Amino acid sequence: MVQNHGQQTNEGTDRNAAPVMAQTGALPGMFSRYKSSVEQELYKAVPGSGAGTGSSEAYRLLRYHLGWVDQQGADMDSSLSQGKALRPTLCLFACDALANDFTKALPAAAALELIHNFSLIHDDIQDRDVERRHQPTVWHLWGIPKALSAGNAMQCTGDLAMLNVADLGVAPETALRVSSILTESYIEMIQGQCLDLEFESRTDIKADEYLYMIACKTGALIRSALEIGALLATDDAATVQAFARFGEYLGRAFQIRDDYLGIWGDEATLGKATGNDIRRRKKSYPVVYALEQASGQAMNELLRIYGQDELDEDDVQRVLAVLDEVGSRENAQRLTEEAAAQAMDALRPVSLPNWAQTEAEDLIDFLARREY
Amino acid sequence: MVQNHGQQTNEGTDRNAAPVMAQTGALPGMFSRYKSSVEQELYKAVPGSGAGTGSSEAYRLLRYHLGWVDQQGADMDSSLSQGKALRPTLCLFACDALANDFTKALPAAAALELIHNFSLIHDDIQDRDVERRHQPTVWHLWGIPKALSAGNAMQCTGDLAMLNVADLGVAPETALRVSSILTESYIEMIQGQCLDLEFESRTDIKADEYLYMIACKTGALIRSALEIGALLATDDAATVQAFARFGEYLGRAFQIRDDYLGIWGDEATLGKATGNDIRRRKKSYPVVYALEQASGQAMNELLRIYGQDELDEDDVQRVLAVLDEVGSRENAQRLTEEAAAQAMDALRPVSLPNWAQTEAEDLIDFLARREY
Repeated sequence: MVQNHGQQTNEGTDRNAAPVMAQTGALPGMFSRYKSSVEQELYKAVPGSGAGTGSSEAYRLLRYHLGWVDQQGADMDSSLSQGKALRPTLCLFACDALANDFTKALPAAAALELIHNFSLIHDDIQDRDVERRHQPTVWHLWGIPKALSAGNAMQCTGDLAMLNVADLGVAPETALRVSSILTESYIEMIQGQCLDLEFESRTDIKADEYLYMIACKTGALIRSALEIGALLATDDAATVQAFARFGEYLGRAFQIRDDYLGIWGDEATLGKATGNDIRRRKKSYPVVYALEQASGQAMNELLRIYGQDELDEDDVQRVLAVLDEVGSRENAQRLTEEAAAQAMDALRPVSLPNWAQTEAEDLIDFLARREY
Repeated sequence: MVQNHGQQTNEGTDRNAAPVMAQTGALPGMFSRYKSSVEQELYKAVPGSGAGTGSSEAYRLLRYHLGWVDQQGADMDSSLSQGKALRPTLCLFACDALANDFTKALPAAAALELIHNFSLIHDDIQDRDVERRHQPTVWHLWGIPKALSAGNAMQCTGDLAMLNVADLGVAPETALRVSSILTESYIEMIQGQCLDLEFESRTDIKADEYLYMIACKTGALIRSALEIGALLATDDAATVQAFARFGEYLGRAFQIRDDYLGIWGDEATLGKATGNDIRRRKKSYPVVYALEQASGQAMNELLRIYGQDELDEDDVQRVLAVLDEVGSRENAQRLTEEAAAQAMDALRPVSLPNWAQTEAEDLIDFLARREY
């Protein structure tokens, strides 16, 4: 496999990377390097629209969610609505950095992206979100029952993709091990979703509880992406463990930055209004921190506002003011920086080629400081 | 392991078998023989209520659905609300019949029951069913978002249980193979659910389409239960294949009988009123057959009735009358008997010990003629 480390190519799918690169906190090179490989592997993993069986219906919804087809099933320009493919990119990077070859990790990369998207389809049902990546959500178009099945089909497709790793000359023991790691990590993810749902009705969430929740809901799959990629490249347990810890801190940095952007992100870049997550009553980190830190009148107002079913614009502005008063914004960014530094520390014992070391640093920098 | 083939014991969990045995079409002996082993394996697979983490919430809902605890989390008399554990029983029986030992198949048996129950939790959401096994359903008590996650947690727990099969001295290749079979079969199950949802809005379903749908929705997991049990006992591909085909026909007999009971089942035995599935507008086999066979006035009435959102008692009686006119009842029972005979034929090439041969016959007889 021809590789092109640490530089952008100007071919193929990479043309889509250009507008992204122009923004603050450019998407690191590894994303464009693995993009077309991840896409091809995903196309292989998700069955096409078989005629007549009706089973195609489930897969049509999957393909729609993945941004491949529109509501009517017609092919889409894939560059418009797809995500970053963070998890597969991390998995391939880990394998590549340690073995100078990422092909063995491709089935795992596809599996991780499918499992992540399964969680998004179900998340949208749970949160009643009507839009994702500027498109109507699956449940919003086809109803909860079909969206529920589409999510389940996405998850199975991911599991099956993972079991395919054994066909690429990976030892059966290793194939079983990575399947277990993936399954264990998405059990954690689901536990995180449960906790998140529980937090909706609580105003006494401690920052530590919140960090535990995101370690499950977001962190587990990011950690397992790096752990699995490393495990497919090396038998050295300490190295695999270092990548797992790297992923753990990376996941934290990523999620707290996500929480930050959900409140203070630039409207034009994100396509969402400032304060959006406040409006949706999301108990993201800055709000949890404020609920822990505020006192007196500010606390009473927070409790009153989060006791309501809906927030009006005055409420949103008042919450934003309290977040300012207690220093939620600075605290969130400080925590992100701390997690970024811990991620860097976690990788220190591992000897990596220069290109990989540089890319790991770029990645941390990007995840902790991105604007979108 | 001490076994007690072909006879009922009077100890332990078997006390619960007594009332069941008194009914027409007694539950075959294999159900009581494996019952406590299946229960123990399930207890091992489903994490207990860990304190403080909040992750216990998801498992509390699982334990509730499985009939182990009540809504408040207090222990229940497990004999009251649990199902037959059909799939684990089939899996253990196949392994036992071929290897005279079922212990290697216990993780798979637990996995099958968990995957089946995952589908039930999600089915209840999709069908908006408020009661199952005489208890309120999970979504009805805790809402759709939490029920959705509880179902997902059940499914992952099943996947993990299956991967544990490797700890029992099963070769990693075989462990991977049975995991793949399980995953493939529940992809089929989910495709079946999608088709079933699609059928809700259709009145032109052909009997063949319906049989394909139930082969996916119900048949796949029953087939894989027997296939996996056989594969854990023997390397002989023809034998494994025979058990898979046995399961295929068994699944069809089981489901058509289920459809029959949903309409003409005895109210006292089932705890449901006659015509219940008509009332719920379920397009089960007898209705599909009638929609295919009816003509003239009868067909017009069926189309009018199934074009409505709700059926009143007159509608239900009218549908029952049309089913009688076109011979749906006899046809359903004939199809069940045919599937039962095909199931028996499928096993014929396999040389089984006498006890197993007798039990396989009892099983077919029970599934095709049961009253509950």
